[in-house]
Amino acid sequence: MAPKLAAEFVGTLWLTLGGCGSAVLAAAFPEVGIGLLGVSFAFGLTVLTMAYAIGHVSGCHLNPAVTLGLVAGGRFKAAEAVPYIVAQVLGAIAGAYILYAIASGKPGFEVGGFAANGFDAHSPGGYSMNAALICEFVMTFFFLVIILGATHGRAPAGFAPIAIGLGLTLIHLISIPVTNTSVNPARSTGPALIVGGWALQQLWLFWVAPIVGAVVAGIVSRSLWPDDTTLIEGR
Amino acid sequence: MAPKLAAEFVGTLWLTLGGCGSAVLAAAFPEVGIGLLGVSFAFGLTVLTMAYAIGHVSGCHLNPAVTLGLVAGGRFKAAEAVPYIVAQVLGAIAGAYILYAIASGKPGFEVGGFAANGFDAHSPGGYSMNAALICEFVMTFFFLVIILGATHGRAPAGFAPIAIGLGLTLIHLISIPVTNTSVNPARSTGPALIVGGWALQQLWLFWVAPIVGAVVAGIVSRSLWPDDTTLIEGR
Amino acid sequence: MAPKLAAEFVGTLWLTLGGCGSAVLAAAFPEVGIGLLGVSFAFGLTVLTMAYAIGHVSGCHLNPAVTLGLVAGGRFKAAEAVPYIVAQVLGAIAGAYILYAIASGKPGFEVGGFAANGFDAHSPGGYSMNAALICEFVMTFFFLVIILGATHGRAPAGFAPIAIGLGLTLIHLISIPVTNTSVNPARSTGPALIVGGWALQQLWLFWVAPIVGAVVAGIVSRSLWPDDTTLIEGR
Amino acid sequence: MAPKLAAEFVGTLWLTLGGCGSAVLAAAFPEVGIGLLGVSFAFGLTVLTMAYAIGHVSGCHLNPAVTLGLVAGGRFKAAEAVPYIVAQVLGAIAGAYILYAIASGKPGFEVGGFAANGFDAHSPGGYSMNAALICEFVMTFFFLVIILGATHGRAPAGFAPIAIGLGLTLIHLISIPVTNTSVNPARSTGPALIVGGWALQQLWLFWVAPIVGAVVAGIVSRSLWPDDTTLIEGR
Repeated sequence: MAPKLAAEFVGTLWLTLGGCGSAVLAAAFPEVGIGLLGVSFAFGLTVLTMAYAIGHVSGCHLNPAVTLGLVAGGRFKAAEAVPYIVAQVLGAIAGAYILYAIASGKPGFEVGGFAANGFDAHSPGGYSMNAALICEFVMTFFFLVIILGATHGRAPAGFAPIAIGLGLTLIHLISIPVTNTSVNPARSTGPALIVGGWALQQLWLFWVAPIVGAVVAGIVSRSLWPDDTTLIEGR
Repeated sequence: MAPKLAAEFVGTLWLTLGGCGSAVLAAAFPEVGIGLLGVSFAFGLTVLTMAYAIGHVSGCHLNPAVTLGLVAGGRFKAAEAVPYIVAQVLGAIAGAYILYAIASGKPGFEVGGFAANGFDAHSPGGYSMNAALICEFVMTFFFLVIILGATHGRAPAGFAPIAIGLGLTLIHLISIPVTNTSVNPARSTGPALIVGGWALQQLWLFWVAPIVGAVVAGIVSRSLWPDDTTLIEGR
Repeated sequence: MAPKLAAEFVGTLWLTLGGCGSAVLAAAFPEVGIGLLGVSFAFGLTVLTMAYAIGHVSGCHLNPAVTLGLVAGGRFKAAEAVPYIVAQVLGAIAGAYILYAIASGKPGFEVGGFAANGFDAHSPGGYSMNAALICEFVMTFFFLVIILGATHGRAPAGFAPIAIGLGLTLIHLISIPVTNTSVNPARSTGPALIVGGWALQQLWLFWVAPIVGAVVAGIVSRSLWPDDTTLIEGR
Repeated sequence: MAPKLAAEFVGTLWLTLGGCGSAVLAAAFPEVGIGLLGVSFAFGLTVLTMAYAIGHVSGCHLNPAVTLGLVAGGRFKAAEAVPYIVAQVLGAIAGAYILYAIASGKPGFEVGGFAANGFDAHSPGGYSMNAALICEFVMTFFFLVIILGATHGRAPAGFAPIAIGLGLTLIHLISIPVTNTSVNPARSTGPALIVGGWALQQLWLFWVAPIVGAVVAGIVSRSLWPDDTTLIEGR
């Protein structure tokens, strides 16, 4: 169990440091910044790279909603969900603080949004709480459909990290303007602790909507793919 | 048959929500918008992700032109084409309405083009109806060449979703300025129902040109690859 | 032999139509254009998609320099080089004319550079003839190193189209400002026939430099990989 | 041994020429430049393409920090590290000079930063030496985690070049603004020799931080993946 939890810690650290790091450090760099397109690729590639690197250790969930959605779909042991989630949240917090250490090494640095997720006044595009709820629910639902389907026993072996990583890229291409895109409560928690205030007040939505979306996808998947019970847990 | 139709419904919903969603929500976001490049990746990644997730359920057509082109090429059963197409169109409509629910959650929202396809005054670059007909015909022809070739029994196994998904990205990189890129009558129908007016009046072209291009490719493929009769239908 | 030549014709048509099409139609679209990054992906994806679709028919050379480099490396039959090259050039010309038919359907259309390759005054960045010679030589040399190495019998099976297609993307990311990037005499010939004048006068460089670079790579490869004689010809 | 060293020379030449070349020639091209996003893809694709092309010859390290990190992790023979590193540095220098030959063929060319790595006044975003140290350490640490994990015997075969190449893309998406991104002492040395002055004075950091980060990752990997001793050396 220790290597699995270490892998989830390291992987979620990388997801948060890499995804949020690209947003904080590079997205709006003058004239040649990577923009929302670059941030979308960065988030997706954190998952793609870790899924190949540690998928065989822990299953590479990196996300409490994913862990719970897999449990709902009968693809992960409920008894291991809590330690996985704790490791993920600790990793995300560590990633956010490492990012802070780097980002603050620039003269005149201000924390600003620090890639935290938000709605209403704190949505990048000013979207309402309702839009944020629908968006996070739907995006996480489809993220789990991709994960459950691409890791199915009849899907081609070895390709799931590409489908899942680029699926997260796609989700960001759609939804950054709405909520800065979470679909991952751990990733939301790290920056929220650094930003404080509104980010902590709005954090509930980025636990509730992704987890509900993931669990619904897990339940639906039992109809779409009735015949797969492979656990996604590495080994 | 029910899981196949459910998969086509869910997949085409995702294609329309994700592809058109990236265009409506993120393409022109101030300063850091994803642009036509990001929209091109989004459309392609909807297909790449779903091809891995549900390809083993339904074959992942997500597109009436694809279904009919596969029939013309002897790679899908004619008897199942109509239910597939109905599921695809219903999925696309559902995707468009979910997108509407999210997009309208922004103060001052206006429907605008809503990623609908068009020509003449409604072509992003002002291209004529003739240019649109040629473009949609040729692009769908090559989309089917990619699909038929990459799923051929002698092509390397497991890679077809990458070729097909990134092929759709490529098609968008070329042709968004001409027609907003359809090559998919279902994807065109969803936003047209929301926009109404001109979008519904011009919708015929995005049924006719893609289907004719796909069927011609299916017929031609019988010469290029005379020896493959594998059905693309999942199982 | 007929299906092989048909495949080379169709594939090179797609390379020229898709790559040059993205440049002519979408690169400089106001505010949201795909830029040189999008054009780089488009060229690479034409090769990636065709390599999966027709690699098993003809080997998917799509390029006279590739064909001759493979001959020099002992990986293709010299006797078949001329018909392959003829099919490629005809395909590229057809692709350029189809692009013209679409692009000219816009009010106020002017041919302009039409994605033709050039140097000096016709280099996008004003690079000299010497810089263009070095650049096209070196880029084609490495293109063949990638092709010869990734299709080697000890390289992982099935991945070569990804390496080769994204290798062409990489080459464009580097060298569009120098020559608009050729590394492919057929791709250069199509647009040059439409532009005429300077483009035809400078066309020699885009036959000479890529072919010399490719042939040198073919010869060098016999030392780097002395033990592979697999022919790249489909079957 | 000669083909291995030749492969490392050629591969590191390509990494430096391609990655730095995209930055010097294309990143800031007026209006349609590829930006930091394009440079990030270029660096990653040099590694992806070479890993497929020469991975079976030398293991495709292309980077002294990678070679030493693999030694620390028990995945490469210590006795061969020095010749590998010499070949890598010579390749990087050759790549930088070829890039200079092309880039200087433009009227009014000035060397400028020439994609050299730096901190403080020579960091693209003005980041301090401490931020640069942390950033290069952490980024190289995770680069090695990706390399060691994706080449593990239980990871899916054949996909490591995708994970590693796109992992380098991701690292650039995060950290170009901080140091121009090194994680590779050879890549740093080539341009520094051309730029001279400050670039040579700051070069030490881009040897120390990446190597320490890589070696720590190698040591940590013995706990995460205790059971793999496959050497990454081609054959």
